[in-house]
Amino acid sequence: MTVKIGILGYGNLGRGIECAVKQNSDMELKAVFTRRPPESLKILTDNVPVYHIDDILNHKDEIDVLILCGGSATDLPAQTPEYAKYFNVVDSFDTHAKIPEHFENVNNSAKEGGKIAVISCGWDPGMFSLNRLYASAILPEGQDYTFWGKGVSQGHSDAIRRIDGVLDAKQYTIPKEDALEAVRSGANPTLTARQKHLRECFVVAEDGADKERIENEIKTMPNYFADYDTVVHFITMEELKKNHSAIAHGGFVIRSGKTGIENQNTHIIEYSLKLDSNPEFTASVIVAYARAAYKMYKEGSVGCKTVFDIPPAYLSYKSSEELRKEML
Amino acid sequence: MTVKIGILGYGNLGRGIECAVKQNSDMELKAVFTRRPPESLKILTDNVPVYHIDDILNHKDEIDVLILCGGSATDLPAQTPEYAKYFNVVDSFDTHAKIPEHFENVNNSAKEGGKIAVISCGWDPGMFSLNRLYASAILPEGQDYTFWGKGVSQGHSDAIRRIDGVLDAKQYTIPKEDALEAVRSGANPTLTARQKHLRECFVVAEDGADKERIENEIKTMPNYFADYDTVVHFITMEELKKNHSAIAHGGFVIRSGKTGIENQNTHIIEYSLKLDSNPEFTASVIVAYARAAYKMYKEGSVGCKTVFDIPPAYLSYKSSEELRKEML
Repeated sequence: MTVKIGILGYGNLGRGIECAVKQNSDMELKAVFTRRPPESLKILTDNVPVYHIDDILNHKDEIDVLILCGGSATDLPAQTPEYAKYFNVVDSFDTHAKIPEHFENVNNSAKEGGKIAVISCGWDPGMFSLNRLYASAILPEGQDYTFWGKGVSQGHSDAIRRIDGVLDAKQYTIPKEDALEAVRSGANPTLTARQKHLRECFVVAEDGADKERIENEIKTMPNYFADYDTVVHFITMEELKKNHSAIAHGGFVIRSGKTGIENQNTHIIEYSLKLDSNPEFTASVIVAYARAAYKMYKEGSVGCKTVFDIPPAYLSYKSSEELRKEML
Repeated sequence: MTVKIGILGYGNLGRGIECAVKQNSDMELKAVFTRRPPESLKILTDNVPVYHIDDILNHKDEIDVLILCGGSATDLPAQTPEYAKYFNVVDSFDTHAKIPEHFENVNNSAKEGGKIAVISCGWDPGMFSLNRLYASAILPEGQDYTFWGKGVSQGHSDAIRRIDGVLDAKQYTIPKEDALEAVRSGANPTLTARQKHLRECFVVAEDGADKERIENEIKTMPNYFADYDTVVHFITMEELKKNHSAIAHGGFVIRSGKTGIENQNTHIIEYSLKLDSNPEFTASVIVAYARAAYKMYKEGSVGCKTVFDIPPAYLSYKSSEELRKEML
C-alpha cells in the first residue's frame, strides 16, 4: 500500500509534512497546493508539482489523503468542511473550545462525500489528549495536570506585539519545576495558573519608547499575563532574530491517582515531550494519522474522527501480526 | 449501561480488580470464582457470591465480562481459550514470546463463541506496548528504550530461591540513572543489559549456609544475572518481611527520534509509571479494557483483541461528545 499525500498550505507545518512523508516508505507526496502563485514556491522535494488552490479539485483522484496545513483561526474552520467533501483530510485544528462545532461541520461534509476526516491532530490537541483519556480511564479517582513548555506561545507573543511601541516579541511559557515536583509526589495539589507556569518575554521596543510603560502593560494584561509571574527582557532586533527564532516546544501530561480498598496506593502516569521543532513533530503525528485515515477509508468508514476514535494499530505501517510479535 | 464483572482467581490481581470495579460507577462485581473451597474465601465486597470454578458455566448469563486473574505460565494459556467460548474475557497474559500463539488460540475460541477477548492487558504488555507503538509510528527514524523499575521481579526472585541454602529472596530491578539521562539527551546510545539495569538482591540464607557460594551462584547465573551488575545483601527473614513486601513498580518507555530534511531535529517522547501497587494498577488497566470489551461486544464485534486494536474512547465511561469537549 502506498498512501498518496497532498499538502494544502506550505508554511512551517506544510514543510514538516513534506519531511515526514519522506521518512515513511509507504507514503508518497503527490502535490502541494497553495494560495500563492505556484511558480513562486520552491519546495524541498524534486519532481512534485505545486498547484494553485483553485485547481485542487482537478487533482482529487490523484490524492489519497489531503493534509490541511492552515491556521485554526480562519483557514481550517472553512477549509476542512469544504475539502472533506472531496478528499480524505487531516487537520490540526487546535482551538479547544470550538472543537465540538468544528467536528459537527466536518462530520456532515465527510459523510456527504463518503470520506474520512481526522481533526485536531498533533500533540495538544492530539497526543496530550490521548494521554489524558487513557490515564483518566485507568485511574478514575485522580487528577490530571497538563504543563506546556518550555516553548514559544504564538498567542502571547502576538499579544505583546499589539502593545504601542513594540516592534517584535517572543514569549516563552515555562513550567515551574516545583509545581511539577509537587504533582509527581502524588500530593494532588490545587495549582493556580501562577503556580504552574512562568511567562518570560523578549521584547524589541521602538527607539525612545517608554520601556517601563510597556513592561507594565505586559504584566497587567488580563488573561494573557496578569495571572502569571511574568519576566520581561528588552533586547535588540538582532538578538531576537539570533537567539529567539527557535521552534522548540514540549510539555507534560501527568495523572496522579489512587487505588486500593481505602485508596491507600498512589500511582503517577507521566507523558512528556521534548521537541526541537514544534511544527515538524506536529507534522509527524499528522502523517501517522493520515495513514490511519486511509486505512479506515479503505475499510469503508466515513465521517469525522479524532485520535480518540482510531485504533492505535492503524497508525503503523506494520501488520497486526507484526505489531503483536514485536511491540506488545 | 452497567457492566457486570466476574473475577476468576482471587489473588493480588483479583483483589485489585475488586477494588478497581468499586471506583467505576458503571461497573458492578457480580461473582468471584475460585479453585479453593468457596466458603474459605473472604472477599472485600459485601453481598457478592463466591463460587467454585466448576460451577462457572451455570453463571454465564449473569456476567458481561469475566476477568481472568491467573498466572501466565500455566493458568492463562488454558483458561483464556476455554472461557472465551462462553464469556467476554480479559486477561493479562505477559509471556511476550508466546503472545502470537496465545492470540491465535484465544481468537479461535472467541470467534467460535461469538465473544470478545482482550489479551495481554496491563502495563507491560499493555500501556508500555501502546506507547512503543504510538511513538514509533510518529517518529519512524528513531529508537525505543524500555526501562523497568524500581520494582521486584518475580522471575528473578524465584531464580534466587531455587539456589541451595536460600530460604527466601527478593530481587529489585533498578534502571540506571546515567542510561536514562543518555537516552533523554537524544544521543540514541546503544546500551547493554548491564548499562540499563542494576539488579539488587535481598537474600535470607539458611543457618550455616555458605554465603560466599550463594552470592557467587547468583552473580554468575546465566540469563538472569550474569550479564548485569548485581548487588547481594544477606538479611534476616524478619527484615525481608518487614522491608521487602512492597509491590511497588514502574518504568519508562522512551523514544528518541529525528525529523527534518536533514534529520537535524531531535524529539524525545517519554512515558513513565510510578506505581505503589503493581497488581492494583494492572487491575485498573484491565477494568478499563473490560468496559471497552463490553462496548465492542454490544456493537457486534467478536474475536481476540489487544490494546493495539481498541479505539481509546472505548475505555472511558464518557460519551464521544463529552470526550471531545472535555479532553481533546
